[in-house]
Amino acid sequence: MRLVTFLAGGERRVGALRGDAVVDLNRADPALPSDVVALLEGGAAVLDRARRAVAAAAGAAVQPLAAVKLLAPIPRPPKIICVGRNYADHAAEAAAVGLPPTDRPSIFVKVSSTVIAAGEPIVHPRTTEQLDYEGELAVVIGRRAKDVAKEDALSYVAGYTIFNDVSARDLQLAKSGGVTLGKNFDSAAPMGPYLVLTDEVPDPTKLTLRTYVNGEERQHASVAGLIFDIPTIIAFLTQQLTLEPGDVIPTGTPAGVGFARKPPTWLKPGDVVRVDIDGLGVLENSVIAA
Amino acid sequence: MRLVTFLAGGERRVGALRGDAVVDLNRADPALPSDVVALLEGGAAVLDRARRAVAAAAGAAVQPLAAVKLLAPIPRPPKIICVGRNYADHAAEAAAVGLPPTDRPSIFVKVSSTVIAAGEPIVHPRTTEQLDYEGELAVVIGRRAKDVAKEDALSYVAGYTIFNDVSARDLQLAKSGGVTLGKNFDSAAPMGPYLVLTDEVPDPTKLTLRTYVNGEERQHASVAGLIFDIPTIIAFLTQQLTLEPGDVIPTGTPAGVGFARKPPTWLKPGDVVRVDIDGLGVLENSVIAA
Repeated sequence: MRLVTFLAGGERRVGALRGDAVVDLNRADPALPSDVVALLEGGAAVLDRARRAVAAAAGAAVQPLAAVKLLAPIPRPPKIICVGRNYADHAAEAAAVGLPPTDRPSIFVKVSSTVIAAGEPIVHPRTTEQLDYEGELAVVIGRRAKDVAKEDALSYVAGYTIFNDVSARDLQLAKSGGVTLGKNFDSAAPMGPYLVLTDEVPDPTKLTLRTYVNGEERQHASVAGLIFDIPTIIAFLTQQLTLEPGDVIPTGTPAGVGFARKPPTWLKPGDVVRVDIDGLGVLENSVIAA
Repeated sequence: MRLVTFLAGGERRVGALRGDAVVDLNRADPALPSDVVALLEGGAAVLDRARRAVAAAAGAAVQPLAAVKLLAPIPRPPKIICVGRNYADHAAEAAAVGLPPTDRPSIFVKVSSTVIAAGEPIVHPRTTEQLDYEGELAVVIGRRAKDVAKEDALSYVAGYTIFNDVSARDLQLAKSGGVTLGKNFDSAAPMGPYLVLTDEVPDPTKLTLRTYVNGEERQHASVAGLIFDIPTIIAFLTQQLTLEPGDVIPTGTPAGVGFARKPPTWLKPGDVVRVDIDGLGVLENSVIAA
């Protein structure tokens, strides 16, 4: 099942795709929640009920996908914990600008108000001259997880979505800046278009990620190349804190970001960044001036 | 006015203190929201209505403070952006362990699921051997703020609360750890007991902060000692991102944390940490084993 959050009558609704249509789950079955985090909190029983509702839906509960405004699948995740330097070729790029490899997952946080949807603009902050993209696979958590063993970790995953970890490199790498500043600004977290549940992604390591800027391919990698794989990341994080339904974990970006080009190239107003992961759809966002 | 979030019948409610009693705002006036962030979003008109409701409340809307379970005043802040090394004497302590002073506010994020209330336990994570306290004044934002001038910044503040920026120093300072890891674990963000609105705190620089461990005074400083004052922090952050009602900004800790003692002393199960700011109440939490 592919879940979406969309606007209907100014209200956030949760839907599921059926071909070219969106089924409003709560309209199809009023016992279902109208919020995606509440839906995930319901667990397998509620998701099964949602699947039945999608199959049976008719009338006003079904709208053409083209007619609705999609929001990010989880518009305000409870938390977004990103993993840095998690593909060997990108870790080598990062080492060249002073970020050495680490022997455990290197993490940072994006605040939830930075999330935007596919199709919404990345607003170039006035505070940076080095705006950069990072195409990533993001894991979405399905149930509370604390002290989870690697072997069990994937059973806590609800599904996957595409994430662009937009970064301000001058802020990120400045002695007086730091990763939090370089990763947190309005529109720094494009995410979507769908949350694709694990029933459609039995093995995330089989996925291939591609990032394009203005149609030119810049990143192309198999998710199998993750240094710390998804079970390892979940086990590591849950030693430290509780993961909850709707939490988003972008797993890291492969080689090919703008700072590693010779000369480095930065995103500017008018550019279009597109991240593509087979089976998960396309996350495309234009850059506009502040 | 002093706002609290409390549990009644298993439900989160927002209240205001009246002497030794709590007035349930939504019970006193059903037009008022039952959630603190929604109350702040209502702005001055809704807060004035709340003040009238507090004055007029009677019957079941009023309960003894001692009879309710207080939660953190904002149990799940939309975001928590902390400022590090923001008192000169603490910045000197930090420089001694390899964290140099910065020429702009040094920021990091705590995720909202780390928040606990006054009286709830700090659970010593198994992942650290160097658990430490940091008593802080926290600012709570009252209305959406982007590109705010210093001169106007305080008008975006709803009020103040006490914050303990509990930290795992070995994780924070390890080459493979980092500030995000060292600052984010379950129960790392004790906050409360009240959100004291600006009508009761006309000038936060007049406040004095004290931290005690097992009754022994460890920190004692005037908030006037902030390197980057509250207007500067708000102006700086809003160049970068939008602040929203309910966002929490802990402003930094003064000298006297455990890592700077000779020898360093770390929090262990059984310890009681108490942070005290005049007029804001007392934030006391015990440390327990995981």
